[in-house]
Amino acid sequence: MALIVQKFGGSSVANVERIQRVARRVAQTRREGHDVVVVVSAMGDTTDELIELARQLNPNPAAREMDMLLTTGEQISIALLAMAVQAEGELSISFTGGLAGIGTEPVHGRARITAIDPEPVRQQLAAGRVVIVAGFQGVTEDGSITTLGRGGSDTTAVALAAAIGADLCEIYTDVEGVYTTDPRVVKQARKLDRISYDEMLELANLGAGVLHPRAVEFAKQYNVALMVRSSFNTNPGTLVEEEATMEQGQIVRGIAHDMNVVKVGLVGVKSRIGNLQKLFQALADAGVNVDIIVTSVVKEDQSDISFTVESENLARTTLVLDELRSAFGNPEVAVEENLAKVSIVGAGMISNPGVAAQMFATLADAGISIKMVSTSEIKVSCVVDKDLAHRAVQGLHHSFGLDASTEAVVAGLNE
Amino acid sequence: MALIVQKFGGSSVANVERIQRVARRVAQTRREGHDVVVVVSAMGDTTDELIELARQLNPNPAAREMDMLLTTGEQISIALLAMAVQAEGELSISFTGGLAGIGTEPVHGRARITAIDPEPVRQQLAAGRVVIVAGFQGVTEDGSITTLGRGGSDTTAVALAAAIGADLCEIYTDVEGVYTTDPRVVKQARKLDRISYDEMLELANLGAGVLHPRAVEFAKQYNVALMVRSSFNTNPGTLVEEEATMEQGQIVRGIAHDMNVVKVGLVGVKSRIGNLQKLFQALADAGVNVDIIVTSVVKEDQSDISFTVESENLARTTLVLDELRSAFGNPEVAVEENLAKVSIVGAGMISNPGVAAQMFATLADAGISIKMVSTSEIKVSCVVDKDLAHRAVQGLHHSFGLDASTEAVVAGLNE
Repeated sequence: MALIVQKFGGSSVANVERIQRVARRVAQTRREGHDVVVVVSAMGDTTDELIELARQLNPNPAAREMDMLLTTGEQISIALLAMAVQAEGELSISFTGGLAGIGTEPVHGRARITAIDPEPVRQQLAAGRVVIVAGFQGVTEDGSITTLGRGGSDTTAVALAAAIGADLCEIYTDVEGVYTTDPRVVKQARKLDRISYDEMLELANLGAGVLHPRAVEFAKQYNVALMVRSSFNTNPGTLVEEEATMEQGQIVRGIAHDMNVVKVGLVGVKSRIGNLQKLFQALADAGVNVDIIVTSVVKEDQSDISFTVESENLARTTLVLDELRSAFGNPEVAVEENLAKVSIVGAGMISNPGVAAQMFATLADAGISIKMVSTSEIKVSCVVDKDLAHRAVQGLHHSFGLDASTEAVVAGLNE
Repeated sequence: MALIVQKFGGSSVANVERIQRVARRVAQTRREGHDVVVVVSAMGDTTDELIELARQLNPNPAAREMDMLLTTGEQISIALLAMAVQAEGELSISFTGGLAGIGTEPVHGRARITAIDPEPVRQQLAAGRVVIVAGFQGVTEDGSITTLGRGGSDTTAVALAAAIGADLCEIYTDVEGVYTTDPRVVKQARKLDRISYDEMLELANLGAGVLHPRAVEFAKQYNVALMVRSSFNTNPGTLVEEEATMEQGQIVRGIAHDMNVVKVGLVGVKSRIGNLQKLFQALADAGVNVDIIVTSVVKEDQSDISFTVESENLARTTLVLDELRSAFGNPEVAVEENLAKVSIVGAGMISNPGVAAQMFATLADAGISIKMVSTSEIKVSCVVDKDLAHRAVQGLHHSFGLDASTEAVVAGLNE
């Protein structure tokens, strides 16, 4: 007898058969005696198709009108899913973000949730209904329809779970849960039963892809228990919660990799206070997300600066550097493409010195040279050649004792 | 410098090119110095596709969820049209029915408008924006999304025009305006420059098809000047307004026909007070729309009753009669199919006796026998054999002086 929020992504409701499958699962949860709130995304490619229509009419459409357009995708999903749940014999009602009391700041395309009124959802639950809420959207105080931007439906689910005091927020995906690493790269990858918010955050930011970082941050902030699990079966997934029990001897909990890295080096930058700020502000203003930054003073009045960006941001980065070069004493610009970032993540690292050293040794033993290093309290990242990234992940997975003793868990993944 | 409401149906916004054409017309009207409010329907077949999806998930979907589903069709149209108008260089904003202040009763699938708050639209007009409003929808007091049912977008346009005090409400269609009769039947059919609300109502109810009767009633009630015109060119259309100037000598303004008529005769009904009420209440309860009713007492205690229904309602009618026959003294039931109704319409009939006689004479001269007759103050309808209906329309169009002197007007119709 719990209060459960279940979130289903676009691929889980991509067609009639899949909507029926979701409806059966929702109805089953209800019949087990739980109160159920469902958060759902737009069907399959709906959002992309609407974006393409908009682009044909206006290459630079107003953000408000894009929100008006795109929120129809989720509205279609909630209505259809409510009908399907009713066809399963359970009471159900659909709510847009606005009807569900989800208030946002007056910003279009990437609004943040400012407040959630739990009453509309609670009243429907009290009346015995499954409440189906449109993900990714809210309304401003004056009633304008907004979208939450990337990862929005995950965030809706977690925020709603926090607001109504849900016991659990289940995120249904096309994988079995959170893995020690990408099972396509390492056959021995294991599904984790539990993981902490911080570890999940590092893995999410590093491209593990099953949960949006913003939703994990929200869950951590409001202490919402998250379960990442498969929408194709009833296997238990991975529970994300505070202070996850550490498994014996497992300081490193997962290995992440990102194949999309470019290193930009500026050699011989004239040292001047404020130069670093100026450079990275200009890049941020141009919408370039800078990841690792390394800087060193080589002479009294000169320094070298290196940083990594995603490869699709390289062109914009070059434009910014062209503008700033002369002010920086015309440093030499060296671009290195075809790189990858490999990271080990684990909350246990804080109290275990030598983890980074073990990582470097593992890579050295495999003949992989390290281009850059970045560390946080629960993470060490190394930039390596893209060609060698998979070998690096495999070596680290083995070296840190993450390989599964059997392959049974992995077998279910591609169902 | 007028305030104009322009309404475009689903076929006018069926694809990107058509939306751009509508946007150009809207922008042109704005550049002529007018304030413009646009009411728009869902793109092409969107509504039918959504209904089909719903049917696959639930053969009997809840009306509330159907409204939640179907209103997305208009929401997509308003967002895309607003973008397209912006691409034409004009300021524009899209409003759902709710944002436009359109309040309805708490009924789903066929809600009536209870009140319109003109302020949201007026504020946007004052800010120099073209306001694009979703047709066919509104919200209840508690924020539930409702649809207005058939003819809903026409009704939205007229009601909004009344609420904001528009000077003119233009209804764009795929024909040039309102014709003296169907140009596919009579080559000499002429477009009418003006027509009164009552005449339009009779023509609309008789199947002229360019305007929904409910919208005409609304326009009459609030004295909204309506212009029916083509979305494919800039020709002037037909102005529908109170006390339209009568053209010299034209008592009959238009000829309508309905090819879908079945006559049901009950011969030898036992006379009993309340029988007629009982019969037609039972038919209404079964959803059968009865049109012409003729009854006559043949003997002291027996009467004959004849009435017409649409042919698709014949099966339901027969079921009702099977149940009631014994209570009515087992009258003989005679069904006559393949009939049509031909009607002459004109506000001038009230003060011109002999119009019906001229109609009967015209039909007799053409060798067409009349099965039933029905009259109102501005209309005479005759039921005839379906095979002879087109000949009847042609004869009446000529006899009442409606034939065009040239065929120039008709030429534009099939563009």
